[in-house]
Amino acid sequence: MANSTQTIYTDATIITLNSSRDIILNGFILVDGSRIIDIGPKSNIPSSLPDGTITISLEGRIVIPGLINTHAHLAQSILRGLAEDLPLHNWLCDAIWPLESCYEGDDGYVAARLTCTEMLKSGTTCFLEAMCTHRAGFEGVVKAVGESGIRGCIGKLVKFEETNKDLNITDPRDRDLSSMSIPSMLSAHEKFNGTYDDRIQVWAAAGTPRGSPLSSHHEIGKTCKKHSIGLTMHCAEAPKDLEIYRSQYDMTPMEFCQQAELTGSKTVLAHMVHLDLATDLPILKETGTTVAHNPNSNLKLASGIAKIPEMLEVGINVSLGTDGAPCGNTYDMFREMHLASILHKGANLNAALTTAEQVLEMATIKGARALGLEKEIGSLEVGKKADFVVVDPNGVGCAPWDVEQALEGGISPVTVVVHSCTGRDVKMVVVDGKVLVQDGKLVCGDEADILNAAKKSVRGIRQRSGIKCSHGSASHRGPISFKKKNAAPKSSNPKPLEGARL
Amino acid sequence: MANSTQTIYTDATIITLNSSRDIILNGFILVDGSRIIDIGPKSNIPSSLPDGTITISLEGRIVIPGLINTHAHLAQSILRGLAEDLPLHNWLCDAIWPLESCYEGDDGYVAARLTCTEMLKSGTTCFLEAMCTHRAGFEGVVKAVGESGIRGCIGKLVKFEETNKDLNITDPRDRDLSSMSIPSMLSAHEKFNGTYDDRIQVWAAAGTPRGSPLSSHHEIGKTCKKHSIGLTMHCAEAPKDLEIYRSQYDMTPMEFCQQAELTGSKTVLAHMVHLDLATDLPILKETGTTVAHNPNSNLKLASGIAKIPEMLEVGINVSLGTDGAPCGNTYDMFREMHLASILHKGANLNAALTTAEQVLEMATIKGARALGLEKEIGSLEVGKKADFVVVDPNGVGCAPWDVEQALEGGISPVTVVVHSCTGRDVKMVVVDGKVLVQDGKLVCGDEADILNAAKKSVRGIRQRSGIKCSHGSASHRGPISFKKKNAAPKSSNPKPLEGARL
Repeated sequence: MANSTQTIYTDATIITLNSSRDIILNGFILVDGSRIIDIGPKSNIPSSLPDGTITISLEGRIVIPGLINTHAHLAQSILRGLAEDLPLHNWLCDAIWPLESCYEGDDGYVAARLTCTEMLKSGTTCFLEAMCTHRAGFEGVVKAVGESGIRGCIGKLVKFEETNKDLNITDPRDRDLSSMSIPSMLSAHEKFNGTYDDRIQVWAAAGTPRGSPLSSHHEIGKTCKKHSIGLTMHCAEAPKDLEIYRSQYDMTPMEFCQQAELTGSKTVLAHMVHLDLATDLPILKETGTTVAHNPNSNLKLASGIAKIPEMLEVGINVSLGTDGAPCGNTYDMFREMHLASILHKGANLNAALTTAEQVLEMATIKGARALGLEKEIGSLEVGKKADFVVVDPNGVGCAPWDVEQALEGGISPVTVVVHSCTGRDVKMVVVDGKVLVQDGKLVCGDEADILNAAKKSVRGIRQRSGIKCSHGSASHRGPISFKKKNAAPKSSNPKPLEGARL
Repeated sequence: MANSTQTIYTDATIITLNSSRDIILNGFILVDGSRIIDIGPKSNIPSSLPDGTITISLEGRIVIPGLINTHAHLAQSILRGLAEDLPLHNWLCDAIWPLESCYEGDDGYVAARLTCTEMLKSGTTCFLEAMCTHRAGFEGVVKAVGESGIRGCIGKLVKFEETNKDLNITDPRDRDLSSMSIPSMLSAHEKFNGTYDDRIQVWAAAGTPRGSPLSSHHEIGKTCKKHSIGLTMHCAEAPKDLEIYRSQYDMTPMEFCQQAELTGSKTVLAHMVHLDLATDLPILKETGTTVAHNPNSNLKLASGIAKIPEMLEVGINVSLGTDGAPCGNTYDMFREMHLASILHKGANLNAALTTAEQVLEMATIKGARALGLEKEIGSLEVGKKADFVVVDPNGVGCAPWDVEQALEGGISPVTVVVHSCTGRDVKMVVVDGKVLVQDGKLVCGDEADILNAAKKSVRGIRQRSGIKCSHGSASHRGPISFKKKNAAPKSSNPKPLEGARL
């Protein structure tokens, strides 16, 4: 009888991330519907399984919990590569915000579909969208997420008019202020939270405080607490931010957040590079607030290096995020894990910091805790959702990984996953018990169509915005030239791609 | 007549790295034997080509010069993952040196074969081996390199007995001192330099000065100058090194190198993290000495962050290297390029530093200059060797890359290559005109055999050395446990992989 809803995945090395951090060599996972109902060594496979149970051998593969990206911008994937070598302020004001304000039609849907595809194919099964703007089209983003099969918390941007004249900031997205209000967020929450088999949550994404009144932010904090809505915010990202909190509010970043009720166990604060450690770390710890670490983005946008070892030391929940494609360039959480592990060793001259195991925790169980989902996802245990990722550790860059030698003192599977694998090694992805990626390919969804739609959307956005790809202004060698063979010497044109077409 | 030796590669986006940094959209490369004899836009394809010329369409692909890894340890790939979370001193003394002193038989050949395979598959066509030890078996390493078809400079270690008692260093490799002498290096140079169609050079790899007499190092420097032999050395890598140069020699690192005649246009100094900038940068510049930057390794081993922007600013030739697998974890130069680009922006709070173009130069033309091969390789130009790499930029992590939009202000192919691609995106690799990787697979060589041999070799090395995989001693969560389901609480055993087999 082929009417069982059970599937048994066997013969794998399973990194469980359960509370005792068990790694099971030659193990199995038994899934019924959307949940794991048994897991263990192969010798413990139940002697009788329902008729029709599907068996999938994962021999030679490593299984990890689905990766959880706690700081991603779903609508930004199509802006990839358009604002290179710029610091945060210019990157936002001169490129990203003007581009984002020129989305129209289904651009947000197209972008979110691309992002979900990239996330799934590179092993991410759950995310926190950090700032869904009005023009991206909230409904379209929800639809893309829902259709893709991924799990996600979509933070709807709640922002106030840019008022800090000292910073000379104007934000063209402000033309949609009324659509980025608290009532608008509540309405989206009402409509979409819990949809698509409860895979989707709607969160509030508070705009970054740069001078807007504390009372306004307090309204967001109170509202989220009252309705038990998750809250995320970009915080203390750029070097200037610490000074802004001090000069505008006479507080440290976390004093501000605490007074505005923006802290708490369902709050995720992203970046957090420039804090007053003595004041801010105890507040984070006491309030159970999560820090989403974004090392790629923080380096690329010249924000700096967050004090992650200090946060881990005092027991703050630190999760991991890729940020959006225009700064992180990819949504590959494997790249983020590797970087998070090596960066703090080097920056602190201490090789014992941020081990492979610690960063894998940040990308899984601590990410789940960040989203209030630690009872559902983040580790592979009986009763949890069947959200997991199968990687192939048999490439030359992983050798001589050998499951036979793992117990003899050979290379650990955690090292292989964190330091050798990339998103390209993901072979299978299961979310809610459903196989969404198989043999490295999307099961449902036409990738060529997704790519072509993205190309079309970004062309329209660029044309409407008038913005062309920037490579900053300080290249030592000058811009890349597009010239005919034996062309004249390079011009100093800062828009590098406008040469003659060959 | 199918007797032409010409092959024409067409329809590609070609990043030439020529002196005017041309990027050719829809271009061709015409190869005769081992050399490029024409290159340009498709409209310039010669109207008549010899009968039998092979045509290969690279439509939709990006072509870059073969990547040049100027700091790699070919014999260390099989030690991958065995010494994690350790600082340089312990990493060397407690793990790497004891392991390296236990190679025997064909271990070095097996390791070099694995490394060459990984390099080729991830787009590296030329390398500088930084320290081939005696036990690795120089002849075996040469054979592996020669057979693989890659191009390489193999630095034969020349070292003196570890004499610095302050550092409490013992090096078990010293039992082979007589085989790591200057005459031994000269003999290897005599025998192997220029072999395998001139793809192989033999270099001297000077042991790191830690107290050994300056006169000894001067012997190496003089010998290399006299015989025009390339010279590489690990230099100023760990935080302690600057103090060692000062206390042992009363000099800065570069004053030492200059006095010992270790500087010059055919010298590559690796790491170079802890220098006396005011004294050392001018010496590097004046002597034309190359710095091989190794950001992954420097972060992972807690060495720190090299002052690369300062070096670039004064015009020092900076190349790029992955270091060995036990510290860098992979030999993927794409990963190294991305990291080199973002790291210095973040560390210096300046997003304009180390652009994608600059790091691509470091990985190609500046690498060629480092090896004295800038007239032969490092860019795609008429007369140069046909060493190039074809990447597939059509993955979701590269979208919305679109060659049609490159001239309109869309994403640049250089950004795509440096920030979105990984070694996994390499589809074809050509060295000396020969296709060594096709469709992402090794053309000659049995990968399964290479992987199995590596597993066998490392088991033997571990068993003879008695060393088991280390994860350091300061994990916040304790070691990973290999336990039965519902096992007892974790032990504090610092050797994590010795639990009961499930």
